[in-house]
Amino acid sequence: MGRPSDARKRLIEAATEVIFAQSYTGVSVDTLCATAGVTKSSFYHFFSSKQELVLATIESHALWFEQHVLIPSFLTNISPQERILRFFCLVLEMQQAQKMISGHMRGCPAGNLTLEMSTQDEVIRERIERLFQEWLQYFELALRAAQEQGSVPATLDIATTAQTLLAYFEGVMLLAKGRNDPTVIRTLYTGALALMHYQGPDL
Amino acid sequence: MGRPSDARKRLIEAATEVIFAQSYTGVSVDTLCATAGVTKSSFYHFFSSKQELVLATIESHALWFEQHVLIPSFLTNISPQERILRFFCLVLEMQQAQKMISGHMRGCPAGNLTLEMSTQDEVIRERIERLFQEWLQYFELALRAAQEQGSVPATLDIATTAQTLLAYFEGVMLLAKGRNDPTVIRTLYTGALALMHYQGPDL
Repeated sequence: MGRPSDARKRLIEAATEVIFAQSYTGVSVDTLCATAGVTKSSFYHFFSSKQELVLATIESHALWFEQHVLIPSFLTNISPQERILRFFCLVLEMQQAQKMISGHMRGCPAGNLTLEMSTQDEVIRERIERLFQEWLQYFELALRAAQEQGSVPATLDIATTAQTLLAYFEGVMLLAKGRNDPTVIRTLYTGALALMHYQGPDL
Repeated sequence: MGRPSDARKRLIEAATEVIFAQSYTGVSVDTLCATAGVTKSSFYHFFSSKQELVLATIESHALWFEQHVLIPSFLTNISPQERILRFFCLVLEMQQAQKMISGHMRGCPAGNLTLEMSTQDEVIRERIERLFQEWLQYFELALRAAQEQGSVPATLDIATTAQTLLAYFEGVMLLAKGRNDPTVIRTLYTGALALMHYQGPDL
């Protein structure tokens, strides 16, 4: 057992390791404690429930993802189209690294938790929905830049098109995870460029 | 308790009801038996495990989905573009009906099981992967028809574009489930038309 003051951090690392690799429902507080090397009383000192731990884990992962994927992809001087493709490429690299270690592609933790928990836990559903809203702002930024540069139609509905891009990203991750093959991301990612010319729902 | 000969059917209905509404891991054999109104010995007469039941449930749902969604969408004389939109619309209607009854949008059972189980159960992962391959054939059929009619580029990579469409469908379902709002499908579904002009991964 490590120092008690590390326990919170180690529980979040354990949750990242086992819940993000497996599922939320399937992982018990006992398993999380064993993985983190902390006692159950220590768990309940820091978190009132598994739900509270997973919320802290989403928080922690969101910060990591912003620093390592969103900012390096979107806050750059490359073209808006290249920013979106870089986003997919950085995720591809992460998924390949995870598969190399565990044999499995884990997919997007936010997407995984959404499909597993949305009908069962409103607090988790709303937390991830808020995360998706943050990601959408990065896509909107790229789309606005593309509009300013004239590389997408001036009439493009930015907010809706950003949603098509996020939907496409999550769907590509789902197909890739279903095949346990991160290279699916490489095969499909330029579909995002086609969506940048989305014409809106009213035909 | 109903007639024993109905037990298999009722277990599949129970699995459709609770596993598709909640999750695979979170639902026990006891819950499935209680929902179906069958004894545990009756369960094990028909199925060796929860896994075997969920495989039979996927089989049963796949047949239903083919008859009620895929065939009415894709095996018609409307334009290929309209076939794809009808596919999204029929799913939207189903999701709205489910939300009306339970308060929750369930999303796509195949997508849900993929993200929950792909790292944990190879048999379930491969069964759903096979299901996705069957759906892809319907998308390919529509794309080939569009190519014959000249409404998509003659150089379109049919197999890859079909995958972009399936990915987009699953991603739209994920976003809609995350918001518990089936109308997201209506807002985003014409993104599929933009993907029909996908230009391939090599830029």
